[in-house]
Amino acid sequence: MSSYFEFSNEELQKELEELRARHARYAADIVRLDMTRGKPGADQLELSEKMLGIIQTNDDCFDENGLDCRNYGLLDGIPEAKKLFADVLGVRPEQLILGGNSSLNMMFDTVARAFCFGNLNSVQPWSKEEKIKFLCPAPGYDRHFSICQQFNIQMIYVPMMEDGPDMDMVEKLVETDEAVKGIWCVPKYSNPTGTVYSDQVIRRFAALKPKARDFRIFWDNAYAVHDLYDEHPQILNILDACAEAGNPDMVYMFSSTSKITYPGSGVAMLASSVDNIEYIKKQTGVQTIGPDKLNQLRHVRMFKDKESLMEQMKKHAAILRPKFEAVDSALERDLGGKEIATWSKPLGGYFVNFDSMSGCAKRIYHLCDEAGVALTKVGATFPYGNDTEDRNIRIAPSFPPVEELTVAMERFTVCVRIASIEKILAERGVEA
Amino acid sequence: MSSYFEFSNEELQKELEELRARHARYAADIVRLDMTRGKPGADQLELSEKMLGIIQTNDDCFDENGLDCRNYGLLDGIPEAKKLFADVLGVRPEQLILGGNSSLNMMFDTVARAFCFGNLNSVQPWSKEEKIKFLCPAPGYDRHFSICQQFNIQMIYVPMMEDGPDMDMVEKLVETDEAVKGIWCVPKYSNPTGTVYSDQVIRRFAALKPKARDFRIFWDNAYAVHDLYDEHPQILNILDACAEAGNPDMVYMFSSTSKITYPGSGVAMLASSVDNIEYIKKQTGVQTIGPDKLNQLRHVRMFKDKESLMEQMKKHAAILRPKFEAVDSALERDLGGKEIATWSKPLGGYFVNFDSMSGCAKRIYHLCDEAGVALTKVGATFPYGNDTEDRNIRIAPSFPPVEELTVAMERFTVCVRIASIEKILAERGVEA
Repeated sequence: MSSYFEFSNEELQKELEELRARHARYAADIVRLDMTRGKPGADQLELSEKMLGIIQTNDDCFDENGLDCRNYGLLDGIPEAKKLFADVLGVRPEQLILGGNSSLNMMFDTVARAFCFGNLNSVQPWSKEEKIKFLCPAPGYDRHFSICQQFNIQMIYVPMMEDGPDMDMVEKLVETDEAVKGIWCVPKYSNPTGTVYSDQVIRRFAALKPKARDFRIFWDNAYAVHDLYDEHPQILNILDACAEAGNPDMVYMFSSTSKITYPGSGVAMLASSVDNIEYIKKQTGVQTIGPDKLNQLRHVRMFKDKESLMEQMKKHAAILRPKFEAVDSALERDLGGKEIATWSKPLGGYFVNFDSMSGCAKRIYHLCDEAGVALTKVGATFPYGNDTEDRNIRIAPSFPPVEELTVAMERFTVCVRIASIEKILAERGVEA
Repeated sequence: MSSYFEFSNEELQKELEELRARHARYAADIVRLDMTRGKPGADQLELSEKMLGIIQTNDDCFDENGLDCRNYGLLDGIPEAKKLFADVLGVRPEQLILGGNSSLNMMFDTVARAFCFGNLNSVQPWSKEEKIKFLCPAPGYDRHFSICQQFNIQMIYVPMMEDGPDMDMVEKLVETDEAVKGIWCVPKYSNPTGTVYSDQVIRRFAALKPKARDFRIFWDNAYAVHDLYDEHPQILNILDACAEAGNPDMVYMFSSTSKITYPGSGVAMLASSVDNIEYIKKQTGVQTIGPDKLNQLRHVRMFKDKESLMEQMKKHAAILRPKFEAVDSALERDLGGKEIATWSKPLGGYFVNFDSMSGCAKRIYHLCDEAGVALTKVGATFPYGNDTEDRNIRIAPSFPPVEELTVAMERFTVCVRIASIEKILAERGVEA
């Protein structure tokens, strides 16, 4: 297909008329198609059915040391679960704390502890500081930004490049501004861009010389093993890289089994230097008598080792691939060559990142809403919900079945085309 | 038996010699008997075996509205679980938030939220205040006090009376000191005294006119249904009483199923006014995408209603009663009439509260340690670990089997008698 920019005004107006007629039919056909959040679909959840009843009897409830997992105790997790997940993350078990069902909760609590008590190496709790700033590579994960807003942390936008955040900017800000205390990173299959951080970017992170000695990289490795294809990238181990660079305590790594087993009933984890972990355990020892150990036990009974967990990930990929491919082929079919949009072709993770022409995203969102398609709120992928270009849209293809997704994408591309033609005509000073 | 105070020096010295010989035999007989923590025993945990495998298949995973409990969502709990636990606590479902596996975690987080963001009605976050003070009725629960220490909250000791904290003192402090922002209460079967707050005490709480408008009562109703006998006390509903008295937002009530099902895998809960709950949900919505709903579902599948939960509590009582009675009869048998100790005879909860002669508790702890009996650290039941009288000892009889408990109590009373005679002889100026 040819570029809309080569169309005459009359051709665009005719195209717009047809598209608006289609849009009106969609609007009259009441369905709700949801592409808002990175939720696994029902067929993915069914992959873990075996885990549900894997602990049945009183005798099943003991860990490898004979500890009764039903009772109180064990702040950092049962040893066999720590071994399994340490192996998955490429860290040592003593670098790991297992949490409840939510890595978001562990991230929030980590920020809250820094506010209330300070990090290892902090001069004082962050709540005593005049101002705290975090770097926010964007497009990024809206819930990271919400945590900053909640704590009144000033967010500084850092552009995402092909291979990670703009490291020139990161270095400059981290190394000159003492108020910069953190940065949010999703290093593999970034939410929503799908970016995989290059070794060079990760080495530059590790070699940072922060002005604030309690600066921390919040390394949300949410998609550590969430590859769509057998051939897949490996990212550098940031904890090792930091230790080698003389910054052993600079990273908090987070992950979970939310998208391995169950989003609502998985196991979250926090990995860091042994010194950080010991420091954190002293604080969390006051907060709780320990997370749910029976659920950890369910996980290790389900996955003997990393290999069996990776087998499960292949089954997830087999379900997700057709969905990502359905999104991509709809975009290619309906928008290819029109020069009105670009989008990512991720090798893993949960999102397709879509950029419209500048100034069109809100209009697309609104048109989609009328057409029964729910999208992630426009702007959510930027600090303060502020996409100054008004062009970024996060497409989450995982939850709807392929058939629904196909319907939703057809409607989506019609909305994109309408908004784009309106924009082009307006720029040409022509009535739409 | 007659009072040690009526013994002559020689009689006491002879008794002491015999007791020390017994103590030496205990010390040579290496066993470890643990009466430190209020942990349910293995036989109590076995009561919930049915719950382990109660969710088996994919089809079992939906709540009464058809919501998939395996997936993300639902910040405050599934409706049927909220109904069940609201009924148990005597509140309305909309007054309730269900949490993870730990009510201690919910208490800690509630203090942390007040520090970082403030309560509903706060002028500013507590972290911005010069000083925050909490009233700490004591003997009390050491983990409440640890939270205060962690947040650098100044603890003010309030004596426990027969029917609750010294309310004259509570009223005076709460109503005159703006820095007093909270009080810890365990209103039914207080840890460790076993105290049941009278209606009058609860009405005086509800009628408080706090100087700080964001003052909160932290009402840890940990033993709401943990009665040892069929005939048992009912405490007044503090939320209703506060609402009637015009203080609807003054209470955070906490509870959990830690000692109903599993300490490590129960369901925690926070009840308060609807306004507080809505305010809290706005904050926790940033912290987490919701607690483990499958575990809530396990609980409601296990307990159809409050009645079936109360049946389970009777089974717990049947296991616990002989343990409490073993403690009491050992104390009566070995210490009765000697005028060297007093102890509680609780109708529920998890502890026997023991007071030795002043200045003897640390010595008893040390003697017990030599004799293989582990006690809760002396002083732990007071703010800053400081029992100025050095006399309070918390006995936790729930975990050891009755036979072990009987051995432990025999050793314990020998240690009490040794420490007491030493004390009496010292007071008489006689060499022990």
